[in-house]
Amino acid sequence: MAVKYNLDSAKVEKAAREWLSERGVKLEQIAKLVLDAQREYYPQLTEEECLAAVNRVLSKREVQNAVLLGIQLDRLAEAGTLESPLQELIENDEKLFGCDEVLALSIVNVYGSIGFTNYGYLDKLKPGILAKLNDKTDNECHTFLDDLVGAIAASACSYIAHRQQAKAEQERSGDAAVPTLTASTD
Amino acid sequence: MAVKYNLDSAKVEKAAREWLSERGVKLEQIAKLVLDAQREYYPQLTEEECLAAVNRVLSKREVQNAVLLGIQLDRLAEAGTLESPLQELIENDEKLFGCDEVLALSIVNVYGSIGFTNYGYLDKLKPGILAKLNDKTDNECHTFLDDLVGAIAASACSYIAHRQQAKAEQERSGDAAVPTLTASTD
Amino acid sequence: MAVKYNLDSAKVEKAAREWLSERGVKLEQIAKLVLDAQREYYPQLTEEECLAAVNRVLSKREVQNAVLLGIQLDRLAEAGTLESPLQELIENDEKLFGCDEVLALSIVNVYGSIGFTNYGYLDKLKPGILAKLNDKTDNECHTFLDDLVGAIAASACSYIAHRQQAKAEQERSGDAAVPTLTASTD
Amino acid sequence: MAVKYNLDSAKVEKAAREWLSERGVKLEQIAKLVLDAQREYYPQLTEEECLAAVNRVLSKREVQNAVLLGIQLDRLAEAGTLESPLQELIENDEKLFGCDEVLALSIVNVYGSIGFTNYGYLDKLKPGILAKLNDKTDNECHTFLDDLVGAIAASACSYIAHRQQAKAEQERSGDAAVPTLTASTD
Repeated sequence: MAVKYNLDSAKVEKAAREWLSERGVKLEQIAKLVLDAQREYYPQLTEEECLAAVNRVLSKREVQNAVLLGIQLDRLAEAGTLESPLQELIENDEKLFGCDEVLALSIVNVYGSIGFTNYGYLDKLKPGILAKLNDKTDNECHTFLDDLVGAIAASACSYIAHRQQAKAEQERSGDAAVPTLTASTD
Repeated sequence: MAVKYNLDSAKVEKAAREWLSERGVKLEQIAKLVLDAQREYYPQLTEEECLAAVNRVLSKREVQNAVLLGIQLDRLAEAGTLESPLQELIENDEKLFGCDEVLALSIVNVYGSIGFTNYGYLDKLKPGILAKLNDKTDNECHTFLDDLVGAIAASACSYIAHRQQAKAEQERSGDAAVPTLTASTD
Repeated sequence: MAVKYNLDSAKVEKAAREWLSERGVKLEQIAKLVLDAQREYYPQLTEEECLAAVNRVLSKREVQNAVLLGIQLDRLAEAGTLESPLQELIENDEKLFGCDEVLALSIVNVYGSIGFTNYGYLDKLKPGILAKLNDKTDNECHTFLDDLVGAIAASACSYIAHRQQAKAEQERSGDAAVPTLTASTD
Repeated sequence: MAVKYNLDSAKVEKAAREWLSERGVKLEQIAKLVLDAQREYYPQLTEEECLAAVNRVLSKREVQNAVLLGIQLDRLAEAGTLESPLQELIENDEKLFGCDEVLALSIVNVYGSIGFTNYGYLDKLKPGILAKLNDKTDNECHTFLDDLVGAIAASACSYIAHRQQAKAEQERSGDAAVPTLTASTD
């Protein structure tokens, strides 16, 4: 190639955020999933903290990669331009096609195994934005996106669990300052 | 060592089944979890088919390994003989200790990614035997076992989904015979 | 839709095998990777047994799904029709883009954790067909395919390890018959 | 229990570091594995940077959990106090027992899928400290530890790849300052 390729990380993150928005997903809607899932454990948790956690998750490259790949596949399936039989597998959200879950797990893994439970729960119950994404009556295809959104929410739940623990330990130690993020809570 | 070591597979499988039983888990109870989770998709599904699926899952070595390791750790934690701070992490089913979910995922993975959702759902709602295992009022420790049982049930759900698909395809093709298990349904 | 969708498993498996062939991968080449990796452990191992193991791995639906998805993405990247920046990430086999490894792992997982080591080793050393797929001097894009082929080979290695163990146990028990495949070796 | 349990994160991290040391693993030895694996990509890389990466990996709770669990199991197997047949599976580092790889993968996952290759490669070739841990002639049991050490090294390799990319992008943008760690490089 004439032009040497160089990875531009800022461009990748920007695209991941824009593509989510273009597909109708607001980060506030993901934050709402997080708040509803975590409120029983942390009654003081605010929507702002949940949104901050979602943003933190989206700053991870592994997450951005999965978001770009999944949304690209949904768009191609929606346009009907994938080759058969892959087109039918994705277009119909075939139950025995699990590559959407595979990509979603690569997001959850970044924040550790404690996120698996929340992911499975959200993916089964499909509250809030997940129900809308999973509505099959229009001509949109969100086979990958609903799993990605569930995985981002589940990862944000893990992040909050780690952070709340750091907060609690800091308070017990008599230090009232807002805790700085340390590596182990990230 | 004087005696050369040789893996005895039958002994490993027998131990995995016995240890589950000794810890109060009946395979019929796992089959019940499977039936309740899958009945909405396959109304004709019977308890016998679910029990057969659970037995199939338990015949896999990867599953046996995880069962033996997890139950051993629960027993040691119950006896209080693990070293601190691992003893406290397991004894108290610490939320930020995720090695139990890690082992459980190694079970679910064997039947593919479509099992993740069922695992997370069961682990969150804790129906049937899972509620009993998760009851913290006695002196038993089931930190690993409840995740293992949920993972075995989720894997059996995957197995059934694959098998029901094979059945449906066979019926469409006009072949009324009970389908033989093929590799792709296993 | 006017025509109801029905999953046709035979069609999916056929497509996975054809797409591999169209992309220049012969199953004999994958079998060769397996033979070279396992010969040190099982000197009697034949190319036929390795090919049978590769075919067994390819009969798994989870494997077929990953093969179809990965090859589709390679083809689209080769045609330059993915959207930026995903197009550049895949076209240049960007080191920090890990979705190819994620898909590959979903293949390896089906035969359990003992395959991870072989996968990583093959992916790093790139012997045989893997070197050809990884050659960047032509205009072909095999960002996903080289990982898929490595994963299929690694899974076939796991399958062989399980099967050889079954053989050895049968011989020790005095039963000279060729062992039937049992679930735990599958 | 009379005394309410509270997770003490500092104690967990301290124990993970001490247990590694007690089992004969120096962080400098892990850093050496990282340097040898990454030097071909980043000729300027120093041992100090590799050691910093290893320390970063060890600051993650998911990693600490796996280290504590794996070393505990090695110690119990060495003392011969696990129950049969688990005792024999671990004591003999049984090839078809994959729970050690499962735990190792939970470490690698935290830094994303690009670490799988390095893990498998290190686990197969066993350079440096890994050869020593894998030496079966003494009475020590390191069935879990060698995989854990390989996984920590592989994760540190991933961390370095992310960080070097951040450095390169900063240099291209004309900013000569030492890059601050951002979330996406962590």
